[in-house]
Amino acid sequence: MLTLYYSPGSVALAAHIALEDAGAVYEARRVDFASGEQRTPAFLAINPKGRVPALGTPRGMLTEVVAILGYIAATHPAAGLAPLDDPFACGEIHAFNAYLASTVHVAHAHGRRAGRWADDPAAIAEMARKMPETMLAACSLIEHELLRGPWVMGETYSIADPYLFTIATWLEGDRVDVAKLPRILDHRARMAARPAVKRVMGFHG
Amino acid sequence: MLTLYYSPGSVALAAHIALEDAGAVYEARRVDFASGEQRTPAFLAINPKGRVPALGTPRGMLTEVVAILGYIAATHPAAGLAPLDDPFACGEIHAFNAYLASTVHVAHAHGRRAGRWADDPAAIAEMARKMPETMLAACSLIEHELLRGPWVMGETYSIADPYLFTIATWLEGDRVDVAKLPRILDHRARMAARPAVKRVMGFHG
Repeated sequence: MLTLYYSPGSVALAAHIALEDAGAVYEARRVDFASGEQRTPAFLAINPKGRVPALGTPRGMLTEVVAILGYIAATHPAAGLAPLDDPFACGEIHAFNAYLASTVHVAHAHGRRAGRWADDPAAIAEMARKMPETMLAACSLIEHELLRGPWVMGETYSIADPYLFTIATWLEGDRVDVAKLPRILDHRARMAARPAVKRVMGFHG
Repeated sequence: MLTLYYSPGSVALAAHIALEDAGAVYEARRVDFASGEQRTPAFLAINPKGRVPALGTPRGMLTEVVAILGYIAATHPAAGLAPLDDPFACGEIHAFNAYLASTVHVAHAHGRRAGRWADDPAAIAEMARKMPETMLAACSLIEHELLRGPWVMGETYSIADPYLFTIATWLEGDRVDVAKLPRILDHRARMAARPAVKRVMGFHG
């Protein structure tokens, strides 16, 4: 049994979709960010980073969405979520997901969580102001270079797809000019039509 | 034959050490950041992100240090750089490396590359001011929670070690109070004594 710790609207959505894609046996436990549950001793004992997703496994806790996605793919080989016997193809998926984690998600975080990197309110406001531009630049590389279509890696769906979808659900909220990202929007619509995504989106509300 | 594109002092050092650890057949090609080579059409054709490391392989180019490290481990199984048949243990390594990439390296980047996220010089200066504090907080989680010792994952050296070492070489330059990170310094010294690391450090200068 796996336990996914999630918060609605967070990047945990990517792991949640992958669990459904995998046909995994799991339970989802909501962490109440509105009340600051992620900062309570009880949750910090689960994940000292105070973040979601975290995935409870029979061996212990895993954190970081890229690692959780890789673990779900590796432990559910029948679902075909990653080319497990092909190190180069797996490396391409990991590279795509790493770009989402360390560039695109980081750009997004400068909108509402810029206080991680500055205390001065004027600096925080300046980061929020620039964020839509930075997000568009980061996503434009996906639009023009990385997204092969119809799925991220081409003809075969993989753990890169729920992660891109998750970040794509943030674009309008981030005031990104989505008209410049038609291929990402097309991918997002294709993802939204999948039954597994519909089930999880209903859950996240 | 593999080709590592690197710049001295960059995170490409982690991949370079891992290639030596693996006994890989490779060549290292320096990208001259001082002259802006990473922004030239010739290099952008290699890596449209304009970053290092990039690893040329017989199948194509891989980017993102976490993906490159995983690829090196997977294609050199005899070197034992990752527990390739154990998805949970591999997941823990990927989670550690993902934390370095998306939290620790990002904290560091706010020192000298804050212009990625703000245009106002005052905001950029404010991020540089706060950076040592953010780096210390990010590294403290490693110091107290994640670093098992003697190697990152415990008794067995892995691709997490050259990556932590690489970031640890930045600490004094980032004005981090390293007296608060004795276990990371101990790990750094243990890494620096390895012949493979000495060879690579000589190369990076």
